[in-house]
Amino acid sequence: MITEIIGYSAAVVGTSLMLPQVIKSIKTKSVGDLSYVMVIVYVINCILWLTYGILLNAWPMILCNALALIISFIQLGLKIRYSDSTT
Amino acid sequence: MITEIIGYSAAVVGTSLMLPQVIKSIKTKSVGDLSYVMVIVYVINCILWLTYGILLNAWPMILCNALALIISFIQLGLKIRYSDSTT
Repeated sequence: MITEIIGYSAAVVGTSLMLPQVIKSIKTKSVGDLSYVMVIVYVINCILWLTYGILLNAWPMILCNALALIISFIQLGLKIRYSDSTT
Repeated sequence: MITEIIGYSAAVVGTSLMLPQVIKSIKTKSVGDLSYVMVIVYVINCILWLTYGILLNAWPMILCNALALIISFIQLGLKIRYSDSTT
């Protein structure tokens, strides 16, 4: 029971991880201090976990990582857009 | 077999996620664009997954998340240190 609660909490926290960063990047329009590699690795991370979820047919995992993938793509888009404007 | 490879790849990628950001922050000593909330949520994320791994007695999960937790604490330390110096 405790194990399940911790597991679901971890999944929810993991999914929403990049959301505060997306909000901050939209507000400040400044992404210079963000590592490009980190943002790209996060996208790859979401794709791998999503694929793993699909292979296991694990719907909570698929749902969480599909959401996280969308958030990670938004962050990547913000990084590309605002990095261009500062150069 | 493919499922396992994808799973382990996802674990390795997830563990090393914050490493490029740590390296960039050390190099530039600039963390202003990083979201404090994101860094803290990442620490919480690692603690939750580590706890989940311990509860399940899953050693690969424990190892990966212990490493990720150390990296996340370094990132938090960098955020605190270099945020102070810019104010």
